[in-house]
Amino acid sequence: MKSNQPALQSVIWATDHLDLLDQRLLPEEVVYLPLQTAEDVWEAIRHLKVRGAPAIGIAAAYGVFLGSRHAGEGKEQWLQLVLQACEYLATSRPTAVNLFWALDRMKARAEQLADTSNDYALDACKQFLLDEAIAIQSEDEETCRMIGVHALTLFKDDMGVLTHCNAGGLATAKYGTALAPFYLAQEQGMKLRVFADETRPVLQGARLTAFELQQAGVDVTLICDNMAGMVMNKGWIDAVIVGTDRVAANGDVANKIGTYSVAVLAKAHHIPFYVACPLSTIDLNTPSGDLIPIEERNAEEITEGFGKRTAPHGVKVFNPAFDVTPHSYVTAIITEKGIVHPPFDVNLKKLFEQL
Amino acid sequence: MKSNQPALQSVIWATDHLDLLDQRLLPEEVVYLPLQTAEDVWEAIRHLKVRGAPAIGIAAAYGVFLGSRHAGEGKEQWLQLVLQACEYLATSRPTAVNLFWALDRMKARAEQLADTSNDYALDACKQFLLDEAIAIQSEDEETCRMIGVHALTLFKDDMGVLTHCNAGGLATAKYGTALAPFYLAQEQGMKLRVFADETRPVLQGARLTAFELQQAGVDVTLICDNMAGMVMNKGWIDAVIVGTDRVAANGDVANKIGTYSVAVLAKAHHIPFYVACPLSTIDLNTPSGDLIPIEERNAEEITEGFGKRTAPHGVKVFNPAFDVTPHSYVTAIITEKGIVHPPFDVNLKKLFEQL
Repeated sequence: MKSNQPALQSVIWATDHLDLLDQRLLPEEVVYLPLQTAEDVWEAIRHLKVRGAPAIGIAAAYGVFLGSRHAGEGKEQWLQLVLQACEYLATSRPTAVNLFWALDRMKARAEQLADTSNDYALDACKQFLLDEAIAIQSEDEETCRMIGVHALTLFKDDMGVLTHCNAGGLATAKYGTALAPFYLAQEQGMKLRVFADETRPVLQGARLTAFELQQAGVDVTLICDNMAGMVMNKGWIDAVIVGTDRVAANGDVANKIGTYSVAVLAKAHHIPFYVACPLSTIDLNTPSGDLIPIEERNAEEITEGFGKRTAPHGVKVFNPAFDVTPHSYVTAIITEKGIVHPPFDVNLKKLFEQL
Repeated sequence: MKSNQPALQSVIWATDHLDLLDQRLLPEEVVYLPLQTAEDVWEAIRHLKVRGAPAIGIAAAYGVFLGSRHAGEGKEQWLQLVLQACEYLATSRPTAVNLFWALDRMKARAEQLADTSNDYALDACKQFLLDEAIAIQSEDEETCRMIGVHALTLFKDDMGVLTHCNAGGLATAKYGTALAPFYLAQEQGMKLRVFADETRPVLQGARLTAFELQQAGVDVTLICDNMAGMVMNKGWIDAVIVGTDRVAANGDVANKIGTYSVAVLAKAHHIPFYVACPLSTIDLNTPSGDLIPIEERNAEEITEGFGKRTAPHGVKVFNPAFDVTPHSYVTAIITEKGIVHPPFDVNLKKLFEQL
């Protein structure tokens, strides 16, 4: 039986620890790792056991709780542990702004709880901080659903839509960002033909996007990244939709490596290029995309990513995990609060001012 | 010790059989397969043990000899076996025109030898036919060297050049087509920075191009296909050069899947896009690229190409082995007889008329 919802939840709070789906093993193995400490969470983020900007933020929020829950000597020490955990978890990966957004939110909540003007007991503070992480997660689910609602207004029955990497249920609390409209279309009986780039080197498109859409009964076709131009040229693609790890104030978009190539190809074929993300991914403090730090990862992801060496020993490799798509390639940014059109520098600012 | 020549020869005639380098096992294992029959050659071509348009042509030429050498009952029977071998080997792969070009040449030679107006004995006919295959191979080496000579006039010291798939020494008798200028530059002490697309799904760029250039001491950096746009945007690429499996009369170019995406990206970044090939790859009988048959290969090349399953079972896959780059994206076609500029429909015809 196929359900028309994402098949698996990537982050589950299990009373006293975090059960985290090891996404590196998908689609062949479904393994949940029990995480007990902030170190466990840091390691899971760094090594891509959890990935996807919103899911990273959610996992990190629980990591702050895990890193401070054993404080025994009053609220001062507890707050210190919270701050330490935030600082530490911020070093796990550099690009996704949701990580910093979630850590800032956890930190602000802890500072508020620790404030001497209120008289919460330490145990209550801890519980309230856990509640904050739970809130981040449940809000993300509703946020993604609303992104899907808005995105779906851009699509029509029988359209072909290409996506890159995985901005799906596995990357978020549920539904995903870029994949949310596919789940909603499925619920409403609207048929979309999805093309999923496999997304080298870590193959999130093949392992995760194709997997979760197939599970939900969505019509999905897997292609190699280098086939995107050909399928566009064949007229099979009416729109591109991707997630993002950070949107700069001018609308430049950092996302999984290869997104820029897809955007250039889309423009050359007069195909709209949409970016789907929660407001928490939009970083008005970063004026433009060239200021977003781009993580470079190790060569082995490319040369022996799947248990078998596929390149000569010692070969020079360039392996950036992300690229930046300039705002001029972006047709619209779809958020939980609606669709933002260019000029993005003006309209993103306006959106935040209205809230 | 690094030599500045291609490291390995893909096709070696060994007195009474063909030693064929199994390119699927590179770069980890260097294994030569002894081929004794036309069936062995057909199987080697179909299963990509030998690949690269010129190398396929060379192997097929030897295959015709192998398929007819045991004829015992006169020249009529021998010619029948030659024609059968040609017809049979033509079914091994559909796209590379060199295959058909080499088979036609072998067939024409056999028909000439079998003609009753000459009095060659059967054994002499067989030897002359083998000589024809050897000639095809040795002419290819000189052809590739001349392609390199012409191509090198387009490059300057310290340029960054991107290539896709493998059109190197392994794809030809020696030197390669697209890679020939890199070997010649190396001989002349000119430094080029080569970027090699890994070229999914079969990873000829990672396994073969990076390997043979590294062996020769050329400065080569391996990237995933989806990074091509980013490295162009960084200003690292001054030219693109690729091989081809067939050029149509109007200059449309069939080549390894992903070439079209690279060509569109090159144009968007105002980077020249060069195609290198012998005249035998130019097919004036095919008016335009949309008439070139494009081979589709099985899904497993994408879903379990790394020796481990990397996509869900039963997922729909689109796996074209080639794409067609329209001539409007091609800056110039580099042949052993010189560089052809647009308009290609006029200038390719002119080139052949001059010969």
